[in-house]
Amino acid sequence: MRAVDIIAKKRDGGTLTQEEIAFFVDGYTRGAIPDYQASAWLMAVLLRGMTWEETTDLTMAMVSSGQTLSLGALGPVVADKHSTGGVGDKTTLAVAPMVAAAGLPVAKMSGRGLGFTGGTLDKLESIPGFRVDLSAQQFTQQVAQIGLVVAGQSADLAPADGKLYALRDVTATVPSIPLIASSIMSKKIAAGANVIVLDVKVGLGAFMKTLESARELAQLMVRVGKGVGRRVLAVLSSMDQPLGEAVGNALEVREAIETLQGHGPHDFDEHCRTLAAHMLVLGGRATTLSQAEGLVAEMLATGQALDKFVDLVRAQGGDVRVAESPAAVLPRAPYVAPVPAPRRGFVREINAEQVGLAAVTLGAGRARKGEPVDHRVGIVLQKKVGAMAEAGEALCTIHAADESSAQAAAQQVLAAYAWSDEPVATLPLMLEVIE
Amino acid sequence: MRAVDIIAKKRDGGTLTQEEIAFFVDGYTRGAIPDYQASAWLMAVLLRGMTWEETTDLTMAMVSSGQTLSLGALGPVVADKHSTGGVGDKTTLAVAPMVAAAGLPVAKMSGRGLGFTGGTLDKLESIPGFRVDLSAQQFTQQVAQIGLVVAGQSADLAPADGKLYALRDVTATVPSIPLIASSIMSKKIAAGANVIVLDVKVGLGAFMKTLESARELAQLMVRVGKGVGRRVLAVLSSMDQPLGEAVGNALEVREAIETLQGHGPHDFDEHCRTLAAHMLVLGGRATTLSQAEGLVAEMLATGQALDKFVDLVRAQGGDVRVAESPAAVLPRAPYVAPVPAPRRGFVREINAEQVGLAAVTLGAGRARKGEPVDHRVGIVLQKKVGAMAEAGEALCTIHAADESSAQAAAQQVLAAYAWSDEPVATLPLMLEVIE
Repeated sequence: MRAVDIIAKKRDGGTLTQEEIAFFVDGYTRGAIPDYQASAWLMAVLLRGMTWEETTDLTMAMVSSGQTLSLGALGPVVADKHSTGGVGDKTTLAVAPMVAAAGLPVAKMSGRGLGFTGGTLDKLESIPGFRVDLSAQQFTQQVAQIGLVVAGQSADLAPADGKLYALRDVTATVPSIPLIASSIMSKKIAAGANVIVLDVKVGLGAFMKTLESARELAQLMVRVGKGVGRRVLAVLSSMDQPLGEAVGNALEVREAIETLQGHGPHDFDEHCRTLAAHMLVLGGRATTLSQAEGLVAEMLATGQALDKFVDLVRAQGGDVRVAESPAAVLPRAPYVAPVPAPRRGFVREINAEQVGLAAVTLGAGRARKGEPVDHRVGIVLQKKVGAMAEAGEALCTIHAADESSAQAAAQQVLAAYAWSDEPVATLPLMLEVIE
Repeated sequence: MRAVDIIAKKRDGGTLTQEEIAFFVDGYTRGAIPDYQASAWLMAVLLRGMTWEETTDLTMAMVSSGQTLSLGALGPVVADKHSTGGVGDKTTLAVAPMVAAAGLPVAKMSGRGLGFTGGTLDKLESIPGFRVDLSAQQFTQQVAQIGLVVAGQSADLAPADGKLYALRDVTATVPSIPLIASSIMSKKIAAGANVIVLDVKVGLGAFMKTLESARELAQLMVRVGKGVGRRVLAVLSSMDQPLGEAVGNALEVREAIETLQGHGPHDFDEHCRTLAAHMLVLGGRATTLSQAEGLVAEMLATGQALDKFVDLVRAQGGDVRVAESPAAVLPRAPYVAPVPAPRRGFVREINAEQVGLAAVTLGAGRARKGEPVDHRVGIVLQKKVGAMAEAGEALCTIHAADESSAQAAAQQVLAAYAWSDEPVATLPLMLEVIE
């Protein structure tokens, strides 16, 4: 078998066999196939596509490139969730404790923020003392002990995906649905959970800009996961405006805690309850979605979900007082200022990507891998799509390191807003469930 | 400007600007853009295509990557020809002397054989003493002195093409019409001639397997060449069976000399006269094609074409007695044996690529760059398409280093033949002229 023949076959629109895909992925991971052959192959895959069988073979070849976590000893069912990334997406911080409190173990590996989207690890590190770098043994032990862990991805899982992703990033081969699907699913499958709920974001502040492409990605990931024996479901949700009100690490942790306390923003609260309920049904803790929603409501009303969050923070070395007094424990920005509405009217649109980039301007995110983030800073939106504002009323509040970055970010946020003289309907949040 | 954005633009079907193409080619040649970005870009170009303006910009960017020969001091018009490569294609050896004898200077840089196709340099080196490695100064001086030179390509011409071609070879990005066109035209333009006749081969023994693809390539090359001020014309000719009768280096030199002596195989003779006539019209030595054909016939009948071949051999150090006694001067294979026809019938097809591969088996060609070739060996076809053979009659003669390679090659040649019980028409040779 020769790499050049496999490239040529995909170039001509052929369907690769399992052996060919395994040969290519294995050869690339070992360094026997050079970057320049892999990048030509990736471009051919991007432009010619892959069947779901090829996508499954690619996923499993990447899983086989490294270690896989075995969570079977922890019980019959362990759950994981994955979000394709958005602006203000602190869902894991609230959903994982809700689900774990209801008796379904959650073992989640998260990532860091890049570009306009934030990352769960950066958010958790806003909590003083919180450790995200756990060994594989610490990771599984913590699930056994408290039924919940959220940590960084071990470098030993699906190394082929890491190597291929770095190459895709510099060769314009990221936006391929089969490549995205196999990248996500390889990490999820290697991480060991057998119940996986995928939160696929659609819209201006997501990687998938159209419902059609998001649906295609969700369907492919569900089919790949089911094909290798996982229980998988995907929820398509809107990212046409930021999720919730807070964008920025400590600000988002605070909003997640407020949601666990029962007074989070309505859209974010609804999103978390729905995702948690789907996870519980899929994990066999409830037989219907409405039963599961009742269970989630009970976990919130009784404080058990917040208690589970405290367990998580304690287990990973964080300051547990954050759950009672987030404002006092979390780092705070020195410069806080409202952004007044430039006119009277109804908010028609808030471009989430632009808000995410404003957060990067403040230092909440990073333009390149490895850069530090400022946990204190960010944006809290007071007016979302459908809201009415008087001229001069606060649209949002900027939390900044200094006045000049605040002013730059304020300009970006103002540019993200579009206005209407007529009333505007609020945006639908949950769009579809793919199972 | 960033390489990744240029890749993404082509990936999405965009049209690249002259600046973007120049940035990419220059960056790649200098090593600032790595192989893995270039190969992703090449695959995007292959699958998305290029306009003729982009192809021209790519051609000229590759020309600009190195030196260009200036032949203007040699007179108002200098001619060159290029063949896209085939089996038994010794056209340059006969055409260049015909044209030069008629007063149109010919300055040709040729290549070596690879895979199933032979190379003019390997053929010329069959002549004892013949040197193909000339400096740029020697090259132009020889045109000034005798009006004819055929030598190897100087490494300084279009180095970007050399670097990109090596990458294309290992990334399955060779078969792209804009990439092939720009590769050929960059070398032709850098080599300085202002009259260029392109001999585009079509069929089983050519890189272009269909008339449609050959026509597209020819049209694109003619348009690119004219766009930068060259007089260019392309002839499409059939390579559904080997051209002429001889395949193999010394055997082909002998056939070319016989053609210059006036008794070459009919198809090859006709092909050479037609190409030479087109070159003379394009170079202004004749006003009509029939006038040019008359001029070529005169050069052959009077021996002036053969004399010009002798001038060429002498100027490049070869044994000039080859023109009178090729059989005595050229190296001969120790083992020569006929291949008998396995049945009575009419020859319906001779797969030229398979005959070319049989010649590689004998050692006449090379599977990989840099390998030596055996100048003595090859195949001479006695029966071509349309011929009638009795069982046991000689189909062809194998010239081999030993009996075992002769037997292996004989099997390959026999497999290349297809038969009919009914009479078969001879194949048309010249298909179209593109100007």
